[in-house]
Amino acid sequence: MNKHHHLLLRGASSLTVSLCKRSGPTHLPPAGPLFPSSGAGGTTTAATIVSNFFSRHHHSTLTSPHHHLPKTARMSTTTPSPVDLIEQSKRLAAFQSVTAHLVPFPSRTRIGIGSGSTVIYVVEAITTLVPPTTLSTMTFYPTGAQSEQLIESAGLNLQYINKLPPGTLLDVCFDGADEVDPNLNLIKGGGACLWQEKIVATSSKKFVCVADFRKMSPALGTMWKKGIPIEVLPLAANRVLGELERMGSLGPKVRPGLPGKAGAVVTDNGMWIVDAPFRPLRVEGTSDKEKGEWQVDELADALIKIPGVAEIGLFYGKNGNQAGEGGAQKPVEAYFGMEDGSVKVLSA
Amino acid sequence: MNKHHHLLLRGASSLTVSLCKRSGPTHLPPAGPLFPSSGAGGTTTAATIVSNFFSRHHHSTLTSPHHHLPKTARMSTTTPSPVDLIEQSKRLAAFQSVTAHLVPFPSRTRIGIGSGSTVIYVVEAITTLVPPTTLSTMTFYPTGAQSEQLIESAGLNLQYINKLPPGTLLDVCFDGADEVDPNLNLIKGGGACLWQEKIVATSSKKFVCVADFRKMSPALGTMWKKGIPIEVLPLAANRVLGELERMGSLGPKVRPGLPGKAGAVVTDNGMWIVDAPFRPLRVEGTSDKEKGEWQVDELADALIKIPGVAEIGLFYGKNGNQAGEGGAQKPVEAYFGMEDGSVKVLSA
Amino acid sequence: MNKHHHLLLRGASSLTVSLCKRSGPTHLPPAGPLFPSSGAGGTTTAATIVSNFFSRHHHSTLTSPHHHLPKTARMSTTTPSPVDLIEQSKRLAAFQSVTAHLVPFPSRTRIGIGSGSTVIYVVEAITTLVPPTTLSTMTFYPTGAQSEQLIESAGLNLQYINKLPPGTLLDVCFDGADEVDPNLNLIKGGGACLWQEKIVATSSKKFVCVADFRKMSPALGTMWKKGIPIEVLPLAANRVLGELERMGSLGPKVRPGLPGKAGAVVTDNGMWIVDAPFRPLRVEGTSDKEKGEWQVDELADALIKIPGVAEIGLFYGKNGNQAGEGGAQKPVEAYFGMEDGSVKVLSA
Amino acid sequence: MNKHHHLLLRGASSLTVSLCKRSGPTHLPPAGPLFPSSGAGGTTTAATIVSNFFSRHHHSTLTSPHHHLPKTARMSTTTPSPVDLIEQSKRLAAFQSVTAHLVPFPSRTRIGIGSGSTVIYVVEAITTLVPPTTLSTMTFYPTGAQSEQLIESAGLNLQYINKLPPGTLLDVCFDGADEVDPNLNLIKGGGACLWQEKIVATSSKKFVCVADFRKMSPALGTMWKKGIPIEVLPLAANRVLGELERMGSLGPKVRPGLPGKAGAVVTDNGMWIVDAPFRPLRVEGTSDKEKGEWQVDELADALIKIPGVAEIGLFYGKNGNQAGEGGAQKPVEAYFGMEDGSVKVLSA
Repeated sequence: MNKHHHLLLRGASSLTVSLCKRSGPTHLPPAGPLFPSSGAGGTTTAATIVSNFFSRHHHSTLTSPHHHLPKTARMSTTTPSPVDLIEQSKRLAAFQSVTAHLVPFPSRTRIGIGSGSTVIYVVEAITTLVPPTTLSTMTFYPTGAQSEQLIESAGLNLQYINKLPPGTLLDVCFDGADEVDPNLNLIKGGGACLWQEKIVATSSKKFVCVADFRKMSPALGTMWKKGIPIEVLPLAANRVLGELERMGSLGPKVRPGLPGKAGAVVTDNGMWIVDAPFRPLRVEGTSDKEKGEWQVDELADALIKIPGVAEIGLFYGKNGNQAGEGGAQKPVEAYFGMEDGSVKVLSA
Repeated sequence: MNKHHHLLLRGASSLTVSLCKRSGPTHLPPAGPLFPSSGAGGTTTAATIVSNFFSRHHHSTLTSPHHHLPKTARMSTTTPSPVDLIEQSKRLAAFQSVTAHLVPFPSRTRIGIGSGSTVIYVVEAITTLVPPTTLSTMTFYPTGAQSEQLIESAGLNLQYINKLPPGTLLDVCFDGADEVDPNLNLIKGGGACLWQEKIVATSSKKFVCVADFRKMSPALGTMWKKGIPIEVLPLAANRVLGELERMGSLGPKVRPGLPGKAGAVVTDNGMWIVDAPFRPLRVEGTSDKEKGEWQVDELADALIKIPGVAEIGLFYGKNGNQAGEGGAQKPVEAYFGMEDGSVKVLSA
Repeated sequence: MNKHHHLLLRGASSLTVSLCKRSGPTHLPPAGPLFPSSGAGGTTTAATIVSNFFSRHHHSTLTSPHHHLPKTARMSTTTPSPVDLIEQSKRLAAFQSVTAHLVPFPSRTRIGIGSGSTVIYVVEAITTLVPPTTLSTMTFYPTGAQSEQLIESAGLNLQYINKLPPGTLLDVCFDGADEVDPNLNLIKGGGACLWQEKIVATSSKKFVCVADFRKMSPALGTMWKKGIPIEVLPLAANRVLGELERMGSLGPKVRPGLPGKAGAVVTDNGMWIVDAPFRPLRVEGTSDKEKGEWQVDELADALIKIPGVAEIGLFYGKNGNQAGEGGAQKPVEAYFGMEDGSVKVLSA
Repeated sequence: MNKHHHLLLRGASSLTVSLCKRSGPTHLPPAGPLFPSSGAGGTTTAATIVSNFFSRHHHSTLTSPHHHLPKTARMSTTTPSPVDLIEQSKRLAAFQSVTAHLVPFPSRTRIGIGSGSTVIYVVEAITTLVPPTTLSTMTFYPTGAQSEQLIESAGLNLQYINKLPPGTLLDVCFDGADEVDPNLNLIKGGGACLWQEKIVATSSKKFVCVADFRKMSPALGTMWKKGIPIEVLPLAANRVLGELERMGSLGPKVRPGLPGKAGAVVTDNGMWIVDAPFRPLRVEGTSDKEKGEWQVDELADALIKIPGVAEIGLFYGKNGNQAGEGGAQKPVEAYFGMEDGSVKVLSA
């Protein structure tokens, strides 16, 4: 059902380049529909994508082949450390997601911007790739204080999701995740902003997830072991905890606010966060509640109905391709910066 | 499915009713001004109920026939006005609900107390009927500021719902409603306290609704025309409004705070209230979304899943008899004070 | 100390015009520095002000003498009703305040916009009088939801006060008041937005008050009898009430939220409002606490220090002319629409 | 002005102290296992204090010499580590503060309970020293979630400060501090609970501070270098930051919520915390604003008046001995557990 585009940058048998965009000439492999390549062989790199893109769309303004390349791409010359490799792949993932989902940069695009270390590169990609005159017509909707600051620092047009007129949708939303399963179900909420994140995501025609390899998971709860973040009304916290235990959660807890605050974390909405660990969630099939094993959709449907629960950190159900008029929680694609410098794409 | 106990207090000359489903057949005396009993046949009065009740349960402690009767019952001597009649029937409804659901007044009972003009009589009934030593072992859980004050004014033991240990339930909850349909689905939230009210109701083994005849309705949306109260995150208000319109709501609006506050009402939870009118909700069958006609459960299931919705003012689904371990939203019974002074009971 | 500019529109002995700006030729009286008139006698009217203004500043764009006049001015042809008279004078007051404090309409002006029925005319005046290209460089900062809507409806550039960079000030703020004393001390907070209003006012180089004659008062507490609105932390409400009573407040109360909300009004900041009536506040001299009589500044200084008080609805102390670097609470001028159609100006 | 009772527990060979200002001169016996003394005469230990206390007050009930001693006192047998020493001295400080300020344990005492590691020992002291029948008549008022839990865990009667009737005061409040100067001015708010802490403290007849030696300071800002915690309305944060810089604060910042929450810490009151470092605050004299040096009271008076500031973490001005009717912010005494196992008492 889901296609995996694993865009190898290293390790592919005929790869002649060091990495990413520092590369000189590249033998490109046959490209898939997402990142078509006119050439014959070799791997797809960000440089290729970006220059391909610009050669198709912005001939006249592209005075230098590197004109629109991100700065670090042009400056790195030495062998990257493992940390650098990951940062580079995250950045590449961000550039790919932007080229794939914003081309041909229509005017007046409304874009949701989430948080997370990879989203920073999304904003860099947008400011680098989108022509300034077009960029000035676009508006950007943050999912929280962090992304609000990111939007403002980049000099982009900030707008709030509460200003989106009823019946209108954002064109696309780029956001991270704490864990992603093969069906593109997500856990989000490590930063306690899940409610606003879900509102922005479901206000978008499509949601594109960007993250690093550590977020890829065979089943939710495998990598992210702290539990599903659940935003609850403080006076219902005890009741929700009891309900969660009855449903098989293994030691759900109210998230503490230390060191900055004694007592519980209070969200921007005045709520608390309960972190509810469950056994790894089944991607397919049904739940076996006897064993405390849940299928994602069934668990999510049960959690959201608990009185006192404001919102849950499970993003599930439909994606933007399936839901005609908004409201989809799942991304249409997830881009991961891999450990080896490559990008992996998971498509719905 | 639902039985109607229509307990006439005036006019019916020879009624032999099954009182509150707990007593056997009763020959009821004619009713006097408030609850006078001059003669032989027929209607149930509060005095009758209460003294019947006590003669069966508390022989030894009942030193005076009027000992436990509410004060006004003993003092009224003139023909009641229509307004008085309604107040009397609401009071009677409250006393009936308490006798039906608190007998035999077990110690350490945990009782939810809601708001509304009829609930005031519930508290009067409890303080009147429950022996003081037992009363001092009971704890009372309010659904909001109004009922908190009511509990404190009556000198009862106040406790907050957030103190209820995980996995524990209240024994019973008495609360009002803005509209009640024949299947005991409710609309609540006219006072903007619906979130806390739902948490208290669903934290109870059984929820008992007390109200006046104006709240009885063949279909939700018939009597209460302001719309279903929906508690929403302020930044999602526009998105929720758009979604509601798409679902067929006729002019949903954010509830204004005037005269006390410019702008929107802010709830005790920091949320806003959207009032969403729909065509009268179908009690049975399924929704016909083309016509904008919804069946209660289907609408509620759809509303609660809209991101940005914290809670909805529809109480639906199971009642406490059906849901073993709490979580039921519907009352097991509803008691209505009728226009003619009588009480109508709607049972699940 | 304070000057009263009483700009008579009716009743002045040599007045030949009906009203406002519908007037034909006008005999103008000698004008003061604020509204200079080239002509000889007669009263200053909005038409005069506006056309004078434009003849001095926008010759070329003023193709029709009525081009920039507000619509209603041109449409009224009959003798105004008392209600109309007041509305017209409020509108005139608004136009005067804008011409007095925004001329010569510098670019990039940052303007605070408050709430109240007269402020609506301020926005009309701004959109009418400021040339569109200049207007598009201005930003407008609301004091609450109502003024936010007003700004957006007028198509003006909305910005939030939390976005004002540290150390920066708004150029001017136009806002209403619930009561104004001769020293330009104010009571505000009838709409429960006093905290945000005070932040916007004190973030401005100067604050200009616009209101109608009903808000003019010899001493605060004379006209506005509901009490000084005080925004308090809910858990401190009782303590604050006790403190207020000890200070001589006559029946301070938590403001109720009905009909939209049971219990207390909750402000946009999650606080409650206590309305604290005091005997009329002394404009000068000192307090006589024995008699429960307070001088404005002394009362304000005492109130703001009560723990649990977030902000108070007294605007007092310095005005923008006196306070070099912002932080002033009092307006530099107050414009009142009078009952007789005229405008009264109170200057610091 | 302030007296220092330095109660050495180790090393002082022939101390005759005035214990807690309540006892007469005391010859102290050799200490027991918990606070062993190598010397022959003299040092005060918790055991001594407690047994002295009980021998004077509760002869009849004291069947065993260790009956009322805290458990750890009886269990420790080895030479304490430095950490143990500090814990022991904090505990001793707590026991001393309770004996000094709760004797003779009057019934129905209302006691404020704050947070901090030393307050835990205060609760231990109360439950250990107060006779159970008296204890059951006392009510305990927390300053936040942490102390609420502490009160409940100890099985004490919990009550909330908002339930204190207007005009009533707590008898005493025990709370910690982040820094204490020689005049008993305090910095509090490291746990973001300063608003509620100040309300509880100023609702008390007297406030008693308990802490460890690290909180003693010659001038506020010397030991606690993170800055004065200031609770601000989020939309005023920028404005407050600008004002603070203008006043000489060195790099004031909004406190971040990580790791539990992205963006700012949100307090239980929905506010943010700004931490504002200043040069060490002058205990006496006046401010020299040119040099950015402030006297405590002057700084506090200036900070509390900044619009957007809800409350400040400076506790200053009067103490409970000076302020007749409540409202005092400063403690009447501070008890410090010292590094060497002794207790130091600072009295107003």
